[in-house]
Amino acid sequence: MLQSKLFYKINKNKLAEVDSISHDLLVRAGFVDQLMAGVYSYLPLGFLVFKKIENIIRQNMIVVDGQELLMPALNPKENWEKTDRWNTLDVLFKLKGAGEKDYALAPTHEEVVSPLAKKIILSYKDLPMAVFHIQNKFRNELRAKSGILRTREFMMKDLYSFHASQEDLDKYYDKLIKAYLNIFKQCGIGKQTYRTLASGGSFAKYSDEFQTITSAGEDIIYVCKKCGLAINKEIKAENDKCPKCEAIDFEEKKAVEVGNIFKLGTKYSTPFELNFKDKDSQEKPVLMGCYGIGLGRLLGTIVEVNNDEKGIVWPESVAPFKVHLILLGKGKVKTTADKIYKTLLENNIEVLYDDREDKSAGEKFAESDLLGIPYRVIVSERTIAKNSVELKERSKKDAKIIKISQLVKTLNKN
Amino acid sequence: MLQSKLFYKINKNKLAEVDSISHDLLVRAGFVDQLMAGVYSYLPLGFLVFKKIENIIRQNMIVVDGQELLMPALNPKENWEKTDRWNTLDVLFKLKGAGEKDYALAPTHEEVVSPLAKKIILSYKDLPMAVFHIQNKFRNELRAKSGILRTREFMMKDLYSFHASQEDLDKYYDKLIKAYLNIFKQCGIGKQTYRTLASGGSFAKYSDEFQTITSAGEDIIYVCKKCGLAINKEIKAENDKCPKCEAIDFEEKKAVEVGNIFKLGTKYSTPFELNFKDKDSQEKPVLMGCYGIGLGRLLGTIVEVNNDEKGIVWPESVAPFKVHLILLGKGKVKTTADKIYKTLLENNIEVLYDDREDKSAGEKFAESDLLGIPYRVIVSERTIAKNSVELKERSKKDAKIIKISQLVKTLNKN
Repeated sequence: MLQSKLFYKINKNKLAEVDSISHDLLVRAGFVDQLMAGVYSYLPLGFLVFKKIENIIRQNMIVVDGQELLMPALNPKENWEKTDRWNTLDVLFKLKGAGEKDYALAPTHEEVVSPLAKKIILSYKDLPMAVFHIQNKFRNELRAKSGILRTREFMMKDLYSFHASQEDLDKYYDKLIKAYLNIFKQCGIGKQTYRTLASGGSFAKYSDEFQTITSAGEDIIYVCKKCGLAINKEIKAENDKCPKCEAIDFEEKKAVEVGNIFKLGTKYSTPFELNFKDKDSQEKPVLMGCYGIGLGRLLGTIVEVNNDEKGIVWPESVAPFKVHLILLGKGKVKTTADKIYKTLLENNIEVLYDDREDKSAGEKFAESDLLGIPYRVIVSERTIAKNSVELKERSKKDAKIIKISQLVKTLNKN
Repeated sequence: MLQSKLFYKINKNKLAEVDSISHDLLVRAGFVDQLMAGVYSYLPLGFLVFKKIENIIRQNMIVVDGQELLMPALNPKENWEKTDRWNTLDVLFKLKGAGEKDYALAPTHEEVVSPLAKKIILSYKDLPMAVFHIQNKFRNELRAKSGILRTREFMMKDLYSFHASQEDLDKYYDKLIKAYLNIFKQCGIGKQTYRTLASGGSFAKYSDEFQTITSAGEDIIYVCKKCGLAINKEIKAENDKCPKCEAIDFEEKKAVEVGNIFKLGTKYSTPFELNFKDKDSQEKPVLMGCYGIGLGRLLGTIVEVNNDEKGIVWPESVAPFKVHLILLGKGKVKTTADKIYKTLLENNIEVLYDDREDKSAGEKFAESDLLGIPYRVIVSERTIAKNSVELKERSKKDAKIIKISQLVKTLNKN
């Protein structure tokens, strides 16, 4: 992509009235744009990151036999009355349609997937089954905050699993814990993210959250110093010992919840009469699990964890581009940089090419650091005199000079 | 994908109370599920088709320099007041959020993209520019109908273009006409789809619709017998001659509008003060164009055009799978079919494998015809006796016997 053509605008100065680093950096660097409180657009740079995160999640959901589908946001009131959430869920957006019909805007999809599964799952032979979608959800938050960390409209991956027995649900749930840890590792926040016990709702004693340590976090967690299991503050009082290793030393941390998973049991299968015929011909309720990840919040958390005083430092797996190619000069320097750009594209290396001739080196470097693309490649009169470019990793201090002929090979090694 | 594990359910019998073939076929074959009037889920089979259509559209938008982003559905009232559409657009869904704030659910995105572009487009150097997104929109239809052809929530690709001059807008608009015709051709409805002149709204005399001939259509168009340009009924009275070739012979047809494009001019740049500084340092309003395609309606139209008395006949470009591999038998037949399945996957051939052992051949064939996958491959005792399979194209009458060793090569040739 040519930077001169990119739909974005940099803001050099720190924003007033933002309550998180990711909000400041993502807006200033042109990844997202705020339409109103709690509602954002993803600009082309942000959308590229978004797609990378989406694909990491998707691949991990396919590994656990999730089948992708797409359920709607617009829901009939009746489904939400059936589970008693029409009146009890305070964040539920409600609206009226033609003929004074009442609709909900879904903040989660148990009320859609359960009656849908009832049409398809009839017998134990149809189990286990898992479906997921990646789709925009709505929450009427009293107070949206922290940029894209807590919004009123947000993209979410939610997977729902269906089982014939508690044993099968337990086994699948453990698989999902592994899949989630793998997702956060692939997104570059593995080291800061902890499996965290939290309150379990109606069915299981505990649910599992995935909490990422950051000062922007709204949650307080206690990390076991011995085994690394964490416990949410809300259940810490019940647990003075670590439920896993029985150690008693914990560290208190602020954290953001980047995912959570629940054993729902029969909570939603009962109201929707989602039953199956078992091997013994008995009709039994299907057991369910649900597993969510908010993509915007994950994106914001990645930035909370990966930044320095100059800007974002994207992990390569989710970076909008691998390489930021920067032209410093005109004439022959430009011809050389153009050629390098073409070569990188031909080698399927994702590159943003700062081809602008009316910006100073200082401005270009500052923008590049703010944007946070992993590899910066500078083409200048000085470098091309030696048939070279300057290569610097965003996360490292020192640059090195390498021959242009070695650039693709060097980048592919990294 | 193993059919025994697929999240779907076939309904053999024609549905009561449906008003289009695509509605009947897509629901019965398990591609979509109706949640309520005008609101559908895309089940895994439908979602696969959806993704193929999405990618065809995306690739064609990238060719015309469209940059992908993602704008939200939840919109502030103020933006819709600014264009006077808060009170005049009868299909606008309205809702209240926390603090009694008024929101709209966007049925189109001029009210979001125009103020966004104002932050980014400042000078003639920033033009032309084009952005698009593929996102769910909402219309409070009085009467949803024809299955997924007219719904209350729908996925839409909308591209917005920004220009410094009328000449540049005209040139880009013509490019988009070609891109649209290419999309419909790639989706297998090229022969039935006509560029159609329609009323132009406030700015241009005419807009262009893309209308696909089908009896499920709500529109009446007149196709010029000489040059193939079509005219929407709403403007036929003004045109007794073809505006392109001046011929006077037309054929009246029912059609579905699968896309439409508009020259908006300054209609939205004026209220949002989307201006740019021209070469002569004068401040001028940006000229805009908008270009929409509803993905669900396109999917439904593809089925309206591509079906027979037995079911859907997917064009290969958008089929959920290329091959439907059908096992007829057990023991050695199953071992052979399993091996063929593995070989097809290893060769990156998309295959649905009907591995069920408790269904009759008749049931399997009927399901296969209903699902409409382009190539049916049967493995039975009779075929494996000759180290062969039976290969039949869904769109053709006759099957042929081919050696198992030749299957991949034969499929890749097609």
